[in-house]
Amino acid sequence: MAIITLTTDFGEKDYFAGATKGAIYSELPNVKIVDISHSVSPFNIPEAAYIIQNAYNSFPKGTIHIIGIDSEINPENQHIAIKLDDHYFICANNGIMSMICSEIAPEKIVEINIHDKIQTSFPVLDVFVKAACHIARGGTLEVIGKNIPEIKPIKNIAPYVNDDKTLIVGSVIYIDNYGNVVTNIKRNFFETIQKGRNFEISARNYTFKKIHQKYSDIVNFEIPENKRHDEGRKLVVFNSGDFLEIAVYKSNSATVGSASTLLGLRLMDTISVNFIPATITPQGKDVLHNMTNINDY
Amino acid sequence: MAIITLTTDFGEKDYFAGATKGAIYSELPNVKIVDISHSVSPFNIPEAAYIIQNAYNSFPKGTIHIIGIDSEINPENQHIAIKLDDHYFICANNGIMSMICSEIAPEKIVEINIHDKIQTSFPVLDVFVKAACHIARGGTLEVIGKNIPEIKPIKNIAPYVNDDKTLIVGSVIYIDNYGNVVTNIKRNFFETIQKGRNFEISARNYTFKKIHQKYSDIVNFEIPENKRHDEGRKLVVFNSGDFLEIAVYKSNSATVGSASTLLGLRLMDTISVNFIPATITPQGKDVLHNMTNINDY
Amino acid sequence: MAIITLTTDFGEKDYFAGATKGAIYSELPNVKIVDISHSVSPFNIPEAAYIIQNAYNSFPKGTIHIIGIDSEINPENQHIAIKLDDHYFICANNGIMSMICSEIAPEKIVEINIHDKIQTSFPVLDVFVKAACHIARGGTLEVIGKNIPEIKPIKNIAPYVNDDKTLIVGSVIYIDNYGNVVTNIKRNFFETIQKGRNFEISARNYTFKKIHQKYSDIVNFEIPENKRHDEGRKLVVFNSGDFLEIAVYKSNSATVGSASTLLGLRLMDTISVNFIPATITPQGKDVLHNMTNINDY
Repeated sequence: MAIITLTTDFGEKDYFAGATKGAIYSELPNVKIVDISHSVSPFNIPEAAYIIQNAYNSFPKGTIHIIGIDSEINPENQHIAIKLDDHYFICANNGIMSMICSEIAPEKIVEINIHDKIQTSFPVLDVFVKAACHIARGGTLEVIGKNIPEIKPIKNIAPYVNDDKTLIVGSVIYIDNYGNVVTNIKRNFFETIQKGRNFEISARNYTFKKIHQKYSDIVNFEIPENKRHDEGRKLVVFNSGDFLEIAVYKSNSATVGSASTLLGLRLMDTISVNFIPATITPQGKDVLHNMTNINDY
Repeated sequence: MAIITLTTDFGEKDYFAGATKGAIYSELPNVKIVDISHSVSPFNIPEAAYIIQNAYNSFPKGTIHIIGIDSEINPENQHIAIKLDDHYFICANNGIMSMICSEIAPEKIVEINIHDKIQTSFPVLDVFVKAACHIARGGTLEVIGKNIPEIKPIKNIAPYVNDDKTLIVGSVIYIDNYGNVVTNIKRNFFETIQKGRNFEISARNYTFKKIHQKYSDIVNFEIPENKRHDEGRKLVVFNSGDFLEIAVYKSNSATVGSASTLLGLRLMDTISVNFIPATITPQGKDVLHNMTNINDY
Repeated sequence: MAIITLTTDFGEKDYFAGATKGAIYSELPNVKIVDISHSVSPFNIPEAAYIIQNAYNSFPKGTIHIIGIDSEINPENQHIAIKLDDHYFICANNGIMSMICSEIAPEKIVEINIHDKIQTSFPVLDVFVKAACHIARGGTLEVIGKNIPEIKPIKNIAPYVNDDKTLIVGSVIYIDNYGNVVTNIKRNFFETIQKGRNFEISARNYTFKKIHQKYSDIVNFEIPENKRHDEGRKLVVFNSGDFLEIAVYKSNSATVGSASTLLGLRLMDTISVNFIPATITPQGKDVLHNMTNINDY
């Protein structure tokens, strides 16, 4: 049974998501429809790109992902279907897929051309659903579009690294439900530049010298529970999507605060990483390994 | 496999929607349950009416729609089941269905009378689920209720038109996830009154002289992208439900603003349309067709 | 077909819930996944406990409930699976299940020990899904964990009653989508202490002398509708989960107000119930039955 997922900025209230599901079931009674998110900020392409990138590969191969963000067709915004990593994606050619495509080359990209007689102000319902159901029935991309060689990029989504490789300048691309601040710096990229050196991560006037394995690593469990004050402590991790994330332990914007509220970090803010040359101490001892120092901020 | 949809004001957090789905699966393991919306504003009947009207007919014929808004039974609020347009609706008789029924005559209306032994403070769970599952199993409406001739209307939901047919006075019935402002003026009604005349749509101190085909029609794609300033521009369209809507291009209340925030429009506010007689210019040229004028506000 | 439910604090926007569903379908294509709630306040264990307690038993026996709140494993927070009331629950051992377990004894509790090779910052995806799918395939709890005799309690979740049984001191454990204020005082507990006596329920500077059967019982339907002013009136009911609830008729925080906003009540605030001895009047008339007095506040 085919699976079709939905990632949109329709919100939780409007009829758009419901109507889309109805249209899918009208064409294919036996498909499974899975909501990934309908709460992408309106027209926010980087947010949508981040969400679909981190959700899609938990689904079985062959899953069809409809992404309904900024999907009105116009001379600069065509509809596309992509096969990549044995998944299918249907969206506007507005950069949403460029984050995934920068890591995994698409097998096939087509510009959808089934619009001849479709005058619509609801393209997800009238176009994307038709394309998705065509694929779900085993149809090929060539039937619904013409091959194109590449997709539109999102601008400024990749972090910057200087020629000396002593500095990464990244930016905040997502703030999650816990107020944790996600940067565009991925683990592989970080480690390739780091080459084992110490580092200092700067976000506004905070610095961090350590990246924890998981959130609760900031807690010293040898101290009795009633004497600890760990809720609300700041830390850095690679999150479950392998993005560098500035977090707050057990954060809640409404109570202990969150990384976003406590550090005053917002979308597009800059996060920098300075790498510090490994030095040889007078005793000849490599200091690289004092990274387990718990004074992490 | 039967489909049962849910449209409620339960919100996204509470146990109500989850418990309702559990109760349906307990009666009918093989039904499909589809959330249309649980984020209707509490007790807001016009909002619910607008959402269900625009969502229901994307679903296959035979779909059963549970609408859980203001559904506590009392001497003035009975439970009803309606067959209309080959769909089934189960709700309270509080006006929710009057918007749909004003366009399509119901085939059958029954007042549900299976309550004999049900003392409940959760009627959606205890009554609507039972009625829906009865219908999903192929049962008739007569078994769960007695025929009634008509339903309760929503007051003041239709727009007003003057005797001269030079003026429509409508009102805001919905504000969507993009902050777009939906009026109760439908395309058919508008065009019937318009008879091709020019018009001026007024909302607070803004006026619009054109209705666009789609949102991006406001963009002049001949101007280079970096010289355009279209995000945040106001326009009027008939939306995907064919309601007259005051919109903002790529609106986002948190960034560029939305029609609701920029124009200060709220639910129940008045929107008026003045029709301007077609005039014959000295040259005898009909000016009706200058509606393509892009100075639309 | 097995049912797996999800109750988390992932929110509606992030990729977490979508990825979790994808992982389940990757293991078990034919399972049914039901969202109970993803909008539990971050790390709020009492809220999650309240939601799952009131939702779970509408589902068929055998349903598997994943509860993803504060689920990162650490020396003080192990993962558990519980069989109770013929339902299965998978969560962290952080008190979430103690509210249910105080009413129904678990048949079996295991501490999950399938983590050997799982280093994860997304335990719901990497551990809970595996455990749930194991159970859905008919596997036993012993295969995924070792038996433990009891779970961690939530502190201070039960109401207090004095030795004379003249006073219950409860607290606010949940505020629902309508702004209604739910206390930790359940109907059975209340009635056992009450023994038919009159009472006075105090919340801040409001008192209530009556508990209504349902919300609209506060309305006098003999008064013409346009002369009533019932929206926004305060009342007390036992809600559909049988918890004592301070409510407002047709409440809406944005319009008529809600119990939470009008009474200024928040989570953890105190609600007390004073029981008044049944007195014999000079005429020897028992006054117990003046509880139908409609001056209820």
